[in-house]
This record gives sequence, C-alpha cells and structure tokens, in this order.
Amino acid sequence: MLPAEVRSIIEEMRAERIRGASWLARRGAEAYILLSELLEGEELESALREMKREIPAVNGTMASLYNLARFIPITGDPNVVRTKAEEFIRLGEEAKREIGNIGSELIDENEVVITHSFSSAVLEVFKAARRKGKHFRVILTESVPDYEGIALARELDSIGIPFEVITDAQLGLFAKKATLALVGADNVTRDGAVVNKSGTYLLALSCHDSGVPFYVAAESFKLHPSLSSGEVEIVERPYVRQGYRVRNFLFDVTPWRYIRGIITEFGILVPPKEI
Amino acid sequence: MLPAEVRSIIEEMRAERIRGASWLARRGAEAYILLSELLEGEELESALREMKREIPAVNGTMASLYNLARFIPITGDPNVVRTKAEEFIRLGEEAKREIGNIGSELIDENEVVITHSFSSAVLEVFKAARRKGKHFRVILTESVPDYEGIALARELDSIGIPFEVITDAQLGLFAKKATLALVGADNVTRDGAVVNKSGTYLLALSCHDSGVPFYVAAESFKLHPSLSSGEVEIVERPYVRQGYRVRNFLFDVTPWRYIRGIITEFGILVPPKEI
Repeated sequence: MLPAEVRSIIEEMRAERIRGASWLARRGAEAYILLSELLEGEELESALREMKREIPAVNGTMASLYNLARFIPITGDPNVVRTKAEEFIRLGEEAKREIGNIGSELIDENEVVITHSFSSAVLEVFKAARRKGKHFRVILTESVPDYEGIALARELDSIGIPFEVITDAQLGLFAKKATLALVGADNVTRDGAVVNKSGTYLLALSCHDSGVPFYVAAESFKLHPSLSSGEVEIVERPYVRQGYRVRNFLFDVTPWRYIRGIITEFGILVPPKEI
Repeated sequence: MLPAEVRSIIEEMRAERIRGASWLARRGAEAYILLSELLEGEELESALREMKREIPAVNGTMASLYNLARFIPITGDPNVVRTKAEEFIRLGEEAKREIGNIGSELIDENEVVITHSFSSAVLEVFKAARRKGKHFRVILTESVPDYEGIALARELDSIGIPFEVITDAQLGLFAKKATLALVGADNVTRDGAVVNKSGTYLLALSCHDSGVPFYVAAESFKLHPSLSSGEVEIVERPYVRQGYRVRNFLFDVTPWRYIRGIITEFGILVPPKEI
C-alpha cells in the first residue's frame, strides 16, 4: 500500500489539466523522494513495485512517466531511491536549460514562431532567445477545452514577449503567417513520431503545406525506448458542451516526415535515412 | 435611404453567428421583396443602388450576397424586383434539393462522414441520404467560438442520424476514422479555392494525408465569377478569452488540389486539367 501522502501526489498528477509532461515527471520524482522519507526495507520495495504500475498509469501516453518509473530501481534502501529521484529532477532541469540554448539558436531576429498548447520546453526556448536579446513574436492557440494557450500567454506577458492568441481552428491560416513552428512533446515513439496535444498534427500538416519548418522541443526522457507510433494509446477526457458529449482525445500523433527536427539536450535529432 | 424595416433585416444578417451563406442569401432576397413593397419609381431605384453596396458588405467573404446583389436589376418597377428576388429564393431551394440528391449518392451504407461547422447544403445531403434509407454516421466539430457544430448536432438528433461531436483540434485525429469528408462553402473563387469556416483547410489537409475523399457542397450562387483565391478578404470577429484578445478570422481558403469535387445543383465539379 502506498502512504496517503504519496497517493495524494498521484491524485494531484491525475487531476492536472494544464501543465505538461515535464511538470508531471518532476512531480512524480517528488513522490519518490517523499516515499523514501516514509518507508524503508521490504515496505519500500513493495511500495516501489506499486509505483512502477501507478506512475506510468497516471497518463499512459506520457513517456516521461514511463521513463521515470524505469529510472528508479526496486530497492529497500531509501537513500538510493532519493538519490536517483533527485538525479532525475536535476537531469530534467539541465536538459531543459540545454534545450533552451540549442533551440534559441533557431530563432532569428523578427522570427514569427507559431506554437500549440503549452510546453515548458518551448517556453524555455523563448526565454533563452529573449535573454540573448532576440526580438521575435509568438502566435499561440487558446487550446480548447483546458486553455493551456492562455497559460502560455500569461507567461509570455510576464517576460515581455509579444504574442497573438488564435482559435485552434485557425492553425492553418496562421501557419502561413509564421516563419517557424515549435511545439513540445509528451512522447516521441521509437519510430520518431511525436505524440503531443491534439492539433499538433494539424499544425505540422499546415507547416508542411506552407513550407514553414516544424520543430519539436523534448527532453530525452520523453523518448520512448520501445513504443512504436502504431501502439500509442491516447488518453481521452470527454466533456459536455450545451448538452452534447464532446470527444476529447488529449493527443495526436505527428509522423517523422512532417518534422524538421527534434530539439533535445543532446542536440537536434533528424530522421534516419530510411524514414 | 433604405427604409428602417429593410435596414433592420440587414442588421439581423450582420449579427447572425450560426447560420451560413445560404440562409444569409435567402434573408437578403427577403429584404429585396420587402423593399419592393415599400418603394417604387426613383425612390426604389436609389434604394436598390444602396442595396448593391450594403448587401455584399454584410459579409464581404460571401459570394452568395455578391451574386444576389448582381441578380436584382436596378429598376423603378417593384414587380420586377419582387419577381427576381422570388426567383433567387426558388432557384436556391431547388439547388439545395438537387445537391441533396446528387450528394447523397456519395454516401454508401455504413459511411462515416466527417464535417466542420454548419452547412445547410451538407445537412440537405444528410437528409436526402436518410430518406434513401442509408445508414451512416457523422463526425462533427463543436466549432469554437460560435458552436455551429452544436446547432448541427441538434438537427441530426431531430432526424435520427447518429453523430459524434469532437473538438476542432481533433480534425486530424478523426479524419483517419472517417471514410468521406463533406463541408459547405461561403465562396468558391474562380480558381476553384473554397472559402469556408476556419478549420476547413485543416480538415482538407488531414483528408489528403489520410486518403479520405474531401467534397464540398455549394449552390452555384456561391461560385464567385471574378474573385481569385489570392484576393479573398476574410472577415474577422475577435473575442476575449480569460482577459486575452483572440484573433478570429471566420474563414480559411482551401485550394483545389485538396478537393475531390464540388457538388452543385448542376453536378459535381472537378478541377480543370491545368490546376
């Protein structure tokens, strides 16, 4: 049995609507640290076995949770659990910083960058470009129904990056006005497809049609070691609008052929020749 | 000066958010009939000259209003105005019925038809297919921010056609589950591009990527005789979401190459060879 305090973090992760894969991975690592403070020996081992099922099950589409659960060994030694969980958080922070450094090099003066939904890796790229003194503009979607785009708008507002908010349905119209597209990822499959907030695939198609380069920013812990694009199971959270049930799969799948590159902390990945 | 009663119809047309180009054209024709009951001679002629500017200006993107204003001659004879306006309405009704007949032949047993926004021509196709005893299913978008999709859901509900409502951002995801796409049009340019509710272009790209045939249903009065796709001016109605202004161009432009055919009352138009 997991301690109530740890279970409550898992419930919080399950309920989260706005923040993405990076936040979830970090919060999951914090749950492991808490566990290491509460249990030891056989009780800890048994709880870790439960975590190995529970953490990825928070959202089956997110590779970061799958990789977090693989990263922490099953052990009775709380120090090992704490050390590994802290290492996971530190690696994640370093990765995001490095993605900011690498990604911001893609942003030229007067760039118009279109994005969809909220990605903390994308925000990091914007912040790094801003620190480098670059002037650019962002086009972002409101992202129905949870309005992650409005959360991004608030962040950009607070750091003085100019932006425009558009409806999700105008991704095609505004891709034509952009010079670069940049989105996050919840999962990069082993055949290089990017699983991200529904609508990402529409942006990729639009950029392909308009000749706008489409990039993805993703820490390496979002690369799934074994899952292929055909096997992705997508979480659905239907809601009701004016009395009608609205289907709401959270993610869609964008194949390699529409992606110019995936910005990771190790550099920019491009498709292998055979894809 | 236009009589207050006629001006109030124009205001009603301007304020309309849900109903599309066919409804607007009909309401515009009714404004002409009312005008023919109120004025004659020079006063009528002068009012008709004003209508020639005012009616297309209700929504500059809609070819039906442009064609309506061209269809009614400038004359002092109220009978001519009434006769022509009634003819416009009758031709429109006949066109829609014939589009239903022709379009419903595209719907096979167990077809899954995806559409976007609300089109009375598309609804007519669905009704005709239902009358022919065909069983099929519709996937429709809620269509933010005015929810025309919910209006379509109500219509389908009332005639017993099964459907699913999706978010606009899932057009790509659900195009893969469809076997046919069918949308309306507000304007077909002379180079064959279809101007329709924003998001239509995203559906067309998705269908192209997934090999799903993409058709447009449009009465011939939606064909613009002189406008080319590069000249389309799109009406915008921005709104506010959580304190942020959201850009909201009502229409986007889908080029011929993504369209399998345009269903008119004269038959299904396909691209000329040079496009």
